[in-house]
Amino acid sequence: MKSAVYTKAGQVGLATIERPQIIDADDAIIRVVRACVCGSDLWRYRNPETKAGHKNSGHEAIGIVEETGESITTVKPGDFVIVPFTHGCGECDACLAGFDGSCDNHIGNNLGGDFQAEYIRFHYANWALVKIPGQPSDYTEGMLKSLLTLADVMPTGYHAARVANVQKGDKVVVIGDGAVGQCAVIAAKMRGASQIILMSRHEDRQKMALESGATAFVAERGQEGIAKVREILSGGADAALECVGTEAAVEQALGVLHNGGRMGFVGVPHYNNRALGSTFMQNISVAGGAASATTYDKQFLLKAVLDGDINPGRVFTSSYKLEDIDQAYKDMDERKTIKSMIVMA
Amino acid sequence: MKSAVYTKAGQVGLATIERPQIIDADDAIIRVVRACVCGSDLWRYRNPETKAGHKNSGHEAIGIVEETGESITTVKPGDFVIVPFTHGCGECDACLAGFDGSCDNHIGNNLGGDFQAEYIRFHYANWALVKIPGQPSDYTEGMLKSLLTLADVMPTGYHAARVANVQKGDKVVVIGDGAVGQCAVIAAKMRGASQIILMSRHEDRQKMALESGATAFVAERGQEGIAKVREILSGGADAALECVGTEAAVEQALGVLHNGGRMGFVGVPHYNNRALGSTFMQNISVAGGAASATTYDKQFLLKAVLDGDINPGRVFTSSYKLEDIDQAYKDMDERKTIKSMIVMA
Repeated sequence: MKSAVYTKAGQVGLATIERPQIIDADDAIIRVVRACVCGSDLWRYRNPETKAGHKNSGHEAIGIVEETGESITTVKPGDFVIVPFTHGCGECDACLAGFDGSCDNHIGNNLGGDFQAEYIRFHYANWALVKIPGQPSDYTEGMLKSLLTLADVMPTGYHAARVANVQKGDKVVVIGDGAVGQCAVIAAKMRGASQIILMSRHEDRQKMALESGATAFVAERGQEGIAKVREILSGGADAALECVGTEAAVEQALGVLHNGGRMGFVGVPHYNNRALGSTFMQNISVAGGAASATTYDKQFLLKAVLDGDINPGRVFTSSYKLEDIDQAYKDMDERKTIKSMIVMA
Repeated sequence: MKSAVYTKAGQVGLATIERPQIIDADDAIIRVVRACVCGSDLWRYRNPETKAGHKNSGHEAIGIVEETGESITTVKPGDFVIVPFTHGCGECDACLAGFDGSCDNHIGNNLGGDFQAEYIRFHYANWALVKIPGQPSDYTEGMLKSLLTLADVMPTGYHAARVANVQKGDKVVVIGDGAVGQCAVIAAKMRGASQIILMSRHEDRQKMALESGATAFVAERGQEGIAKVREILSGGADAALECVGTEAAVEQALGVLHNGGRMGFVGVPHYNNRALGSTFMQNISVAGGAASATTYDKQFLLKAVLDGDINPGRVFTSSYKLEDIDQAYKDMDERKTIKSMIVMA
């Protein structure tokens, strides 16, 4: 069969290679109908280390199931399917929580798919493939394009909006005007955002986003871009969707948010940032800061205490007069008390 | 009046200082009924740089309103109130989103309260103070203790659970067995967690947490502690509540989570980690990773495409035959197309 292979850095050619075969019981062989090039493929394309003969890293396709391993029960030869860039098992904690992109069992098996070829061997296929009704000939070319986005960029744009918890009425800023950023605009609209600003300097991409539901675009970057966003929104954004993967994009995202805002980031991190880098692999959300004492007290905590539903006061394991303040500090410092209370005269 | 002041590092004494007066229109003078020592006060207490005469950093109290500035409309002299460690305005984006601990207007005005004293001048008092029904004499000492926790530690423990989005049925791990950790256990139970594990090496603190709703405790730390948690939960935790503020505690929290898990952190960061440190000040949540293509497609994205509700396929602004794969990469690399589609023969 024909498959794309790297000729050198910055050049991709075609090679005739052996058609893949079923090896494991949960493999499926897919005949590719449409494939595509991902922004993340360009990292290898541009990499001067890339050697001739290296297979392509394409990982998005729609196609027809040609053959299935013996444990495959969900699809059969002839089925039209979305071939996603991930391999969720559908059973682990992560998959059950809706994070099959970081499946606890198959994480790390996601990329380097060789999907820019006539046939694909798709691993861990039983749960991960998604059936499309009918056959490719039933669809317009435009619809095939949209179906193909469901292999990666549309779910990825949606993921940014989901993990940033975009809700009805939210003011949302999308960083990145490429395919994922465009899909993030669509996702923000699906989730009911009232304002969606795209950071973009390209007229065609601005126009596309406006057609998909963006309400404004900002061409400026850095502090100037942040100021422009805040002017349009009369304040900070509720959510920022970072769809690039550079530190500058993360800074932009953090900069447009009001305090208490939420950043969803799906650009594969190309920067040294331990916290973001490691949490990305595990799809872990990280949030924290000073508590909302007034809000929680007024809304429910004071009532819960007065009703006797909770008894947090037991943390005060010692009481002191103000005169004995030094002892109050010392006992806490030496862990003789969990928390020291001062009783005023 | 009497007030706690530092005598030197590791020693606190009493001084007679001038009773505070109303200065700004939104000040309130509070007569303190109960105050306390916070774990964060110990950082200054232990700091060898601490000079004699430095006022106390106490920032938790309950008390009686003694006098109010002219713009105060919500409380009047004689009212019994919770005096929180923060000063939300109640009107900015952050406060409206329930993040008054990082109020867009008064951030940075939170700490260094001099609350370990007979009287307090409380700034920005109009919205931030919380009225308690009746008078102190109406309550038992145990209830006064619980009311005092509402100034900081109970809302702070709750904040960890809220920003980690603890939900009914969740498996939760609490890192830190001090007052905030104890309150985080209470909060996890309030939000319906099915299992709550406290990381703790102190028998009295383990016992207190079990009385508040913890279902188990783990004394081990590091990899051993993580393994023990995973054994008890038969897998990873859904949420980890970090209530210490050290890098080791953050590592512990990240380590016990399954992929797709959520960390809420409220320990004031005492480590150099730009991402966590800066997001803490702004109470920003950060989440991201590989998308859940299979889940989203099966649940709603495929339907949205087939129904014509969304048209993400427009990102494919150019199509190529497999033979023209090099051009497909080149055009994307040079931004001539947003995304290149490969049409198979």
